[in-house]
Amino acid sequence: MTTPFTQRRRAVISQLGARRLAAGKGAVDSLLITRPASCYYLTGFTGDAGALVLSRRGTTLVTDGRFTAQAREQTSGVRIVQQRRSLPAAIGEFVRAAGLRKVGFDASHITVAQLGAMRKAAGGRVQWTASEGLVEAWRGRKDSQELATMRRAAILAGQVLEGALKLLEPGVRELEIASEIEYQMRQLGASGPAFETIVAFGERSAYPHARAGAKRLRKNELVVLDLGAILAHYCSDITRTVVVGRASARIRQWHKAVLEAEGAAIEAVKAGVSCGEVDAAARNVLAGYRLDHYFVHSTGHGLGLEVHEDPRVAKGQKHILEPGNVITIEPGVYVPGVGGIRIEDDVAVHATNTEVLTRIPRDLIEI
Amino acid sequence: MTTPFTQRRRAVISQLGARRLAAGKGAVDSLLITRPASCYYLTGFTGDAGALVLSRRGTTLVTDGRFTAQAREQTSGVRIVQQRRSLPAAIGEFVRAAGLRKVGFDASHITVAQLGAMRKAAGGRVQWTASEGLVEAWRGRKDSQELATMRRAAILAGQVLEGALKLLEPGVRELEIASEIEYQMRQLGASGPAFETIVAFGERSAYPHARAGAKRLRKNELVVLDLGAILAHYCSDITRTVVVGRASARIRQWHKAVLEAEGAAIEAVKAGVSCGEVDAAARNVLAGYRLDHYFVHSTGHGLGLEVHEDPRVAKGQKHILEPGNVITIEPGVYVPGVGGIRIEDDVAVHATNTEVLTRIPRDLIEI
Repeated sequence: MTTPFTQRRRAVISQLGARRLAAGKGAVDSLLITRPASCYYLTGFTGDAGALVLSRRGTTLVTDGRFTAQAREQTSGVRIVQQRRSLPAAIGEFVRAAGLRKVGFDASHITVAQLGAMRKAAGGRVQWTASEGLVEAWRGRKDSQELATMRRAAILAGQVLEGALKLLEPGVRELEIASEIEYQMRQLGASGPAFETIVAFGERSAYPHARAGAKRLRKNELVVLDLGAILAHYCSDITRTVVVGRASARIRQWHKAVLEAEGAAIEAVKAGVSCGEVDAAARNVLAGYRLDHYFVHSTGHGLGLEVHEDPRVAKGQKHILEPGNVITIEPGVYVPGVGGIRIEDDVAVHATNTEVLTRIPRDLIEI
Repeated sequence: MTTPFTQRRRAVISQLGARRLAAGKGAVDSLLITRPASCYYLTGFTGDAGALVLSRRGTTLVTDGRFTAQAREQTSGVRIVQQRRSLPAAIGEFVRAAGLRKVGFDASHITVAQLGAMRKAAGGRVQWTASEGLVEAWRGRKDSQELATMRRAAILAGQVLEGALKLLEPGVRELEIASEIEYQMRQLGASGPAFETIVAFGERSAYPHARAGAKRLRKNELVVLDLGAILAHYCSDITRTVVVGRASARIRQWHKAVLEAEGAAIEAVKAGVSCGEVDAAARNVLAGYRLDHYFVHSTGHGLGLEVHEDPRVAKGQKHILEPGNVITIEPGVYVPGVGGIRIEDDVAVHATNTEVLTRIPRDLIEI
């Protein structure tokens, strides 16, 4: 039976021997996949623990007793091995028993201790090679079905955000809004939030990653809402900044600058353009307003099965955008003691155009 | 100003030179702390990114521009260094500039790629030594304030679970119940769920870590509810299994066995006893019912700032329980194609007694 999962495995396996792997030192005879999102991408398995070994002889999922029944139900054409000891030890034992010699592993996901345990269990004849990025590069190029799902996830996030705006009134707490947001996204069919929902009022909006707290909203304060939903395994991510009351002239100016920066970055997104160029487009606009030193993070990140994945949209990033890439564009300015403004949308790269997946207005709404 | 955070740092720093570190090869002059929960434990910092370097000369928090303002507000007596490049590179540069020579790091948290980047930035004169477990051992011994918080978190989880039982009726979906559970815990003051809430109906209860899905409840089906709340940074974790309708004789027998296994394990929890002995107490009861092969996971885990932390309560684990340890006890039986039963409570070890923090009935409730 051919499924998207079997097709993806076949594509990855066909690359093992042939090419020099992304960050690796050369060809490998097998690839160890440990990121849960990549395990799902290649097999459909959604368990919390386990790892895949891909080689020309097939795909093996090593997992523990909690997940073997689930693995058999969710996967097809995958051999399931139940670990008796720790996962790294079980992977090492399997590699030895299968006679594999050159195993590629994800050095940015495997810990020093895990590599030590795998080496020990596999024995000295196995060579472990850092070769991350192969599956992640495939994941970065979304197919039309994935894009359709991500479109729905982005629209859902926008709906939830618009609903949350209606709840903003003086006296309400950040946590109440965050809680409603996550409740509503599930009511609309999401399996849950893609990350801890950010609701930041007043000065707290100056923290780009503020955790929603007990603070109550006061009149004329800034409100940053940053939320994302997981729908059918795929993530969305959207941010809007509004004022409940009247915005000061300064806040209006900052919002105008961020909106213009976001527009410039979205305009820059095209197949063939580097992520660094997209980042620079946003940064240059803010520099024109002398606000670039208040823009303390990168312009965006890849989005898909994980809420942060390749490619990074940051200063100097050389990744060239390809059709199927989905990235966030989210410039902001953060003035300690005063407040912050961020506007974020999700953008898909197509061969001949760019599609903004999130579809709600970006204005500084004064409620 | 003396806070719990400064006291904890002082205690950890005093151990750096004096003793052979847990898993390490000897004394170090500094310790790199990368687990977010341990960073919070030692400083109060709750940002999503950053790392601590502790040495006799003080504590430094390296973080990125998104979190420096927050770090200055949340911490006291900590030097804040803003990274310009990646976190590992910034740590390496700081270590070199500070003249540190023997840095202990957590090999079970640092990736192979991160260690490579730190080594490169720090230069060849710095020796990196795996020495995990030092802060985690401190975290395992909760003080009376931490225990008071965990008691509240456990009681809250029980209340939410009892509330969810009232919503169980034929036709309701797993996801609706999960969504209500997470909404209610926030209404009661939790900052959020400690993990993705598990709601599993019927055959799906045979998956110990089932993700709540679209399945609707039918009469006489098993229902497993496994949830936890984060309250003032500390986690709780509770599971109950009920039947909406009438339980078969077989289900009653399994539930009786699991309840007896859980009771035996809780009875075994005492300061001075090993975690392996506690695990064996549960496993032996299930063996008496010839159900031990259906018990596919370990008996429990440490609980605190993280929902899974030291000590592990599993087969052969040699950790000796100490006053202040808080662990879960959660045996289960899982029969593929039929269903599963799990009962879980949170237990605190005191010098002369054991306290069950979760306080709701454990019976097989037939609703």
